[in-house]
Amino acid sequence: MTPRFEESFKDLKVTVLAGGVGGAKLLVGLDKTLNPGKLNAIVNTGDDFFHFGLHIAPDIDSVCYALAGLSDPIHGWGRKDESWQVLEELRRIGAPDWFALGDKDLAWQLERQRLLNAGMSLTEVTEHFCATFGIPSRVLPMCDEPAPTRIRTQNGEWLGFQDYFVRQKCKPEVAEISLTGGKKIAPSQAAERALREADLVIFAPSNPWVSIDPILSLKGVREILNEKVVVAVSPIIQNSALKGPAAKMFRELGIMPSSEAVREHYIDLLDGFVFDDLDQEDSKKWQASDIISESFQTIMKDEKDKVALSEAVISLGARILVEK
Amino acid sequence: MTPRFEESFKDLKVTVLAGGVGGAKLLVGLDKTLNPGKLNAIVNTGDDFFHFGLHIAPDIDSVCYALAGLSDPIHGWGRKDESWQVLEELRRIGAPDWFALGDKDLAWQLERQRLLNAGMSLTEVTEHFCATFGIPSRVLPMCDEPAPTRIRTQNGEWLGFQDYFVRQKCKPEVAEISLTGGKKIAPSQAAERALREADLVIFAPSNPWVSIDPILSLKGVREILNEKVVVAVSPIIQNSALKGPAAKMFRELGIMPSSEAVREHYIDLLDGFVFDDLDQEDSKKWQASDIISESFQTIMKDEKDKVALSEAVISLGARILVEK
Repeated sequence: MTPRFEESFKDLKVTVLAGGVGGAKLLVGLDKTLNPGKLNAIVNTGDDFFHFGLHIAPDIDSVCYALAGLSDPIHGWGRKDESWQVLEELRRIGAPDWFALGDKDLAWQLERQRLLNAGMSLTEVTEHFCATFGIPSRVLPMCDEPAPTRIRTQNGEWLGFQDYFVRQKCKPEVAEISLTGGKKIAPSQAAERALREADLVIFAPSNPWVSIDPILSLKGVREILNEKVVVAVSPIIQNSALKGPAAKMFRELGIMPSSEAVREHYIDLLDGFVFDDLDQEDSKKWQASDIISESFQTIMKDEKDKVALSEAVISLGARILVEK
Repeated sequence: MTPRFEESFKDLKVTVLAGGVGGAKLLVGLDKTLNPGKLNAIVNTGDDFFHFGLHIAPDIDSVCYALAGLSDPIHGWGRKDESWQVLEELRRIGAPDWFALGDKDLAWQLERQRLLNAGMSLTEVTEHFCATFGIPSRVLPMCDEPAPTRIRTQNGEWLGFQDYFVRQKCKPEVAEISLTGGKKIAPSQAAERALREADLVIFAPSNPWVSIDPILSLKGVREILNEKVVVAVSPIIQNSALKGPAAKMFRELGIMPSSEAVREHYIDLLDGFVFDDLDQEDSKKWQASDIISESFQTIMKDEKDKVALSEAVISLGARILVEK
């Protein structure tokens, strides 16, 4: 059994690997749970793409907006209280409108591009955004270079991630996933430092294939993680994903989607694993493993849920840290 | 005396050199006066600049919006029925807000950048915009390469044009003007063709220094114009400009701003010159010249004024054409 959450856990240095929406939810809970300055989020940039000449970073923005309390609670992406004047005009003039950039959101994309053009790195721009938003936790792009995820579909076509994910609504069947543009890329210095200095590393309940794997594929990341206590939270509940194509991807890649399959996916790296209470019955049939697996309510409907899950994950990590 | 405007004049091929707001007004009149396909506008791109990584082309947009009937009648620039959601967010996050891009306007800037990135030339993008807007006349950027106008101020600093014009509101005293980035640049093929094929060339009532001179400074343009009937419309009325810094520039460059000074500025190129009725008394003191100068109401408050001035300018040009 996981111990009760203790006050001293708030001073653990926690580094989270995260994608967008699911990751952002847990990060909000962790941000509220840990003492200021203890949380680092290393965020996938494999989803980043250029749209209208602007560097769009969907996962970084989802995380920043969530931590700033500015997320749209209905869509799960973008800003709350958003307006759509630019998108409507784009539609009127026959410009591409498949990627829904709201007006407030767009202002950030413009400012990001301006700062990048002025010579700032993506890490520095993101730091500037966090300061502007008043976010005490650090949001770190996994790397500063372009590291695009691409999807090969069953008909042999390679698609950019947003093309697959947004424009084609994840409909094409996935045959293969190419990470970081097929090149071996180093994590940013800040991301590497956040990993090295972490007491505890958490894999957020994000898509293993296209949110967490891009970070894991960076040069040296697995080696650092081998020395760390790592706890993953399953994004799969009862064989499906709350949001996004994770379960569909497992299936198309020939694997039955389940919490056990998620655990298996990360098997070399994990010390602890948190899966949903709804999979508790199922978990009795899982293969034996050294990984300490515990169930909890992983569906985060409100802030209370986010904090409760955060406390549970940190507590499990703390227990493993003590035992190690 | 200028002959009455004749029906046959509507088939003259007219090419106009123009800047933004003042040029756009006359172009609207000419567009309504001439038969479809007879009007070509060669528009200054010396004001173009990169803002948030987007190629902004203020004069081209002023002309296109005016010809499409989409101009803001109050500001004289930008779109009517405009909203400012993005600009307000830029302001909130401390991003540069000195260049007022409305939401609708911004959609066009985004789409332009997308098409440029896809390999279209500025000429092709502008043609696409005209088609989208349903503009029958041709709007031609003076060239496809960057050709920035720069202003040296009295304290020796070089400013980009929009920095001088918008951010610093034309306040710095002008010491020197550098055109087309200090390089010899060729006009676009389409602009050169429009000049060669013109029956009549008109210099719109735009700023001679920073709207018309950039076009005149392009390789071979003066040589072509030497073979053409050229009529200029003065942007100066009673020693001042209706809008913008033209009169101030004349003064700072040591020249008393007047219609005569405008005629003098273009002296090598002109066959005809139209100045405002309000300067008629003054014109009696002008130096003698071969240029046929006639006064008319050049202030264009409404469409009637625009068409009337257009007919007058074309009629003067037609008379010179017959006499030549």
